[in-house]
Amino acid sequence: RLQHLMTLREEVETLAHGGPWTPTADWRDAGTHLELLLDVPGVDPASLALEEDGGQLTVSGERQGAAGEGRPLLSRERPSGRFSRLLSFPE
Amino acid sequence: RLQHLMTLREEVETLAHGGPWTPTADWRDAGTHLELLLDVPGVDPASLALEEDGGQLTVSGERQGAAGEGRPLLSRERPSGRFSRLLSFPE
Repeated sequence: RLQHLMTLREEVETLAHGGPWTPTADWRDAGTHLELLLDVPGVDPASLALEEDGGQLTVSGERQGAAGEGRPLLSRERPSGRFSRLLSFPE
Repeated sequence: RLQHLMTLREEVETLAHGGPWTPTADWRDAGTHLELLLDVPGVDPASLALEEDGGQLTVSGERQGAAGEGRPLLSRERPSGRFSRLLSFPE
């Protein structure tokens, strides 16, 4: 139930702050393999997850909000909370 | 002239890839001072510049493109090149 409440809270925050976070991505050809470059500044690397399913890739992760420790935000554009993105492998 | 050509090339790339780069920013109240949080992953810190003028702040910097060294991009969303953004201080 706590998890459900947290998800709900994230959804409310997402609605309040201009939509979900969609990190930009590049695919790069490194000869023997593909490289995925993903813009996720401030995301805890331990929160990142990759999941492949039938030629598609889901990347997800989470960024903590920047407020805290008596340092409130005065204006806010940077998205926080969880993101999840479905990517196709390049041709 | 080389600089001019590079600027021209950046402008063409900007037009080709969905417009200029507008990094998202938060202002945070740290008690004795303001903190500016700016999402600029992959930007060389040495390229960042701040300029204050009459209560407004211009931040600028540059990100190198991700292609190179025989590793071409297969798909591209991440903006590169120079950015410049005019910010107002929070109330």
